[in-house]
Parts: sequence; structure tokens; C-alpha cells
Amino acid sequence: MEPIDGRPTATLEIMRDVIEHSPFTRWLGTDILRCDGGEAELEVAITPGLTQHHGVVHGAVLGAVADNACAWAAASVAGDVVTLEYKINLLGPAVGTTLVGRGRVVKASRRVVTATADVIARQAGDERLVATMATILPVTRG
Amino acid sequence: MEPIDGRPTATLEIMRDVIEHSPFTRWLGTDILRCDGGEAELEVAITPGLTQHHGVVHGAVLGAVADNACAWAAASVAGDVVTLEYKINLLGPAVGTTLVGRGRVVKASRRVVTATADVIARQAGDERLVATMATILPVTRG
Amino acid sequence: MEPIDGRPTATLEIMRDVIEHSPFTRWLGTDILRCDGGEAELEVAITPGLTQHHGVVHGAVLGAVADNACAWAAASVAGDVVTLEYKINLLGPAVGTTLVGRGRVVKASRRVVTATADVIARQAGDERLVATMATILPVTRG
Amino acid sequence: MEPIDGRPTATLEIMRDVIEHSPFTRWLGTDILRCDGGEAELEVAITPGLTQHHGVVHGAVLGAVADNACAWAAASVAGDVVTLEYKINLLGPAVGTTLVGRGRVVKASRRVVTATADVIARQAGDERLVATMATILPVTRG
Repeated sequence: MEPIDGRPTATLEIMRDVIEHSPFTRWLGTDILRCDGGEAELEVAITPGLTQHHGVVHGAVLGAVADNACAWAAASVAGDVVTLEYKINLLGPAVGTTLVGRGRVVKASRRVVTATADVIARQAGDERLVATMATILPVTRG
Repeated sequence: MEPIDGRPTATLEIMRDVIEHSPFTRWLGTDILRCDGGEAELEVAITPGLTQHHGVVHGAVLGAVADNACAWAAASVAGDVVTLEYKINLLGPAVGTTLVGRGRVVKASRRVVTATADVIARQAGDERLVATMATILPVTRG
Repeated sequence: MEPIDGRPTATLEIMRDVIEHSPFTRWLGTDILRCDGGEAELEVAITPGLTQHHGVVHGAVLGAVADNACAWAAASVAGDVVTLEYKINLLGPAVGTTLVGRGRVVKASRRVVTATADVIARQAGDERLVATMATILPVTRG
Repeated sequence: MEPIDGRPTATLEIMRDVIEHSPFTRWLGTDILRCDGGEAELEVAITPGLTQHHGVVHGAVLGAVADNACAWAAASVAGDVVTLEYKINLLGPAVGTTLVGRGRVVKASRRVVTATADVIARQAGDERLVATMATILPVTRG
């Protein structure tokens, strides 16, 4: 997928710097692995601090991983974007060692990017889909 | 709003204990103010740790506040519930001293509760709506 | 609620003309009752042609009523808009004589309007909430 | 994908009979092409009666196509289901000769099925993605 309309786009290096200046995302322990061509991938180690009272990862953390995966996929073709809304389906309890977020742009126009993401819980080589997101991100002007 | 079908329901005291055993919600600094009759209210102090790279609260934190507000409103009529999915609209940058989440049950049946929540950013007495959520929570059996 | 930025906005008369030129909405038998100040109300008579195989109104018809209610509420402050996405919760079987859609703008900015709608099934004076929608509509330029 | 828990599931023949008894879906001119293994495909010819005032297919019709595609994909593994909620992203104006809805089950459990669908507008051999849906469908008991 090509950049929209010649806009400056995000790269892995830029996004690592953004994470460095994003306290909440940094607190989650987010590592970005890919950010180009309308796709992004990130990882978050599952720690006790991310759980709810049943011992599984809090749904809002899955929301954070999926939201960042979508936003960074969008940034790779549209530069600066903001999340306008998102919808997340929580598919099962997230347990394991690592959360993996994989975002993908579905459609990018000059004004709006539509993206989706899957969140996977990885445990001992096994990967299990635990959430899916669909979202809309307006392209920031200027 | 009455409890569903004579089920044991959550109270402020029960929910405070649940928060105590929910590391992520506790890390957010969540205080619950109301949980009865299909409504719940909670507060989270806005701190630098909750922000993203533009200095405003990360959208996923608004998601966490709204998700908890919906889940606790549902718990007040249905006891134990899980979040199945949610949709959040982010209405503007969240800045101020405090996030307030207000959840309300729209419809409760034996199997499923539908709830909504508003998230408000409070600053010097001023309140501004920054997010709205709609969600579905299945009622846990047993 | 005031019009955005001095834009020309929809009125009941304009919307009745729009319906006249909207075959699908006209086929549904849509009557618009209100369109001003960020709010809209419409009615659709429930007929056998709108049902699914269990004899209740098809969910997509509730989607159409709610979508139009949101779009027309938005048009009353922003003029021409398009629906970008929507989320609908179906709360129970829609039976009765009339569907009533009530839309309301939650927030309007220069580029985007966020709106919600309720769909009510009316039967012998009784009103029952059968669906709720949340949606985002970009403001059309020009 | 296997049927849930030995439940009776839908087939192409069963669904054709269901359509025959679903006035709204039949009015749309819906033809089902596939319904097995957690996947479904359907087609609707684009006619002037399905359009809105700009001459493109009304968004609620795309909602109907996507909703049916999801429900029928779910029915192929879970038998009778009802749509609880859905979220649709409208990606561009739907013009052409035919709408194609392709539904797929993301996860099926005993109580709930999560499904997604794409809606494509076909024109002179060209296919264009015009909408995506994510939805939750409870499994009907009995």
C-alpha cells in the first residue's frame, strides 16, 4: 500500500521515538516490530499488572494493543492520525507470555483511514486469537 | 432497575474488593462511587502516566474507564458479567484533573446485558464529554 | 444546538424532498416528523414486507431507521453528510404498528459529526426500545 | 470449521427456504451461493430501488447484505442464531451491477458466534470492497 497523496509517513524509527514519548504505551511495555506499507505489528509482554480480577489480561489492555496496531498501520501510509472510534470483539481470555497486535489498513483516503487489527496471545509457541478491532482514523491536516 | 431473575448482584463494597484484586484497574487509580440499580460511576485522576505523545489521555484509557463503568452498571443487576465487545466514540482530547465514567444498563435479559457509558473530563469545575461507549456483556452462569 | 460554522443546514422541507428522491427510504414508507437543532424524528409503518422469517422486523430495517435518524439529526446542524460507520445494538424483537427513529447529535465539529439514535416499536400506545445506534458522519465539503 | 457441539446446522437448501419466508430479504432479491463450514456467500442485484438520493446503494442495504452474510455463516456451524449487534464500516459509494456479501465465522462457542463479512460491489468484472462488518450472534437454545 502506497502513502496517501505524498504525505510524510511513519517508520519503525519514528514510531519508536513516539512510543518513547507516550507514557501509557511505554508503561504497557510495547515493542513495535513492523510499520510500513499499511501494516504494523507490536508486542506486549503479559505481566500481572495488566490483569483483572480473574487473572486474565484486562479487556482495555487488548483495546490498547489493537488501537495502537491500527493507528500505526494507518500512520505508515497517512502520517499523523487520531483514533476517532473503534469496535473491539473480545474472543476469549487472554493468557500466555505475550500479546501480539497486528494492524492492517483496509482503506485509506485523503481524509480518513479505515483499519483492522487482530490481537493474539502467544504461549509456548501456540498463538490464539483473543480480540479483533475495526476502527476509523481521520488524517490530520498540515 | 431490578436484579435479573433473583441473581446475586454487585454492590459498592463488593466492587471495591474486586478493584483491590484487579491490578490494571488499580494501577489506573480507579475509585468507584456508585454501583446500584443498573448504574455505576467511577473516577480516575488524570496523571502523566496515562497520556500519549500529544500529552492527552490515551484513547485506550478512556476505553478502560468506559468499559469498567458499563461492566459495573451491569454487575449491579446481573452479578458476574464479562465484556463481549464494545464500541467507543472518542469525542475530543481528554485533558483536566479527573476522568469520570458513568455507566447505565440499557437492557438486561437473563443471558445478555446491554450497557452504555459516558466518559467526562473534569477540569476546574467544568465537565466535558470526551467519549461514549456501547457494549454487550453476557451474564455468567452459576 | 447551532449549525456548524455557518453551513447551510437541512430542514423538514428539504428532507422531505430528499426522501422523495431516495427510493430505498421511500420504499420503507418513511415519514420525517422533526429535523432541527441537532435532532430528528421519523416513522415507518410496520408492514409484512419488512419482516424476516420469524415474523419480526428484519434487523437491517432497524439499521435503516436508525441510520436515517442519525444522518438527518446531523444534517440539521451540518448540511450534507455521509455515514462513515455505525454500530447498532438490537435489543429485542420489533413488533407493533410503527417504528419510530429518534436521532440526536452528540458532538459536531467542522469535519465530523457523532450522533446516536434510538428505535422504538410502538404498539397500541405502548413504546418499546428495540435498537440503539452510535455513528460517525463526516461533513461534506463544498 | 465444525458444527458447535453437534447442533443441527443450516445448509444451502435450508437457507433458500428461509429466504423464501423472509419478505425483506426476498424483496432485496437475495440469492445465496454458499453456506457451509462457517462461511456464506450471497448476491443482490443492484437496482434503482435500493439507492439513496445520490444514486448509490443506501448504507442500510449494505448493512442488510453484510448482516445476512454473517448470520448465514454463523448458521452453518450453529444452526439458529439471532443478530445481537453489528458494526459496519462504509468504505465507499456502492455502484455496479451486483452486491456480493461474504461472511465468515471468526469464533464459535456454545453460546455466542462472532462473525465478519465483506460487501463487494461488482461492475464489469471489477470487484470493489464497499463495506466490512463485525458482529455477535447468540446461539438460540433448543
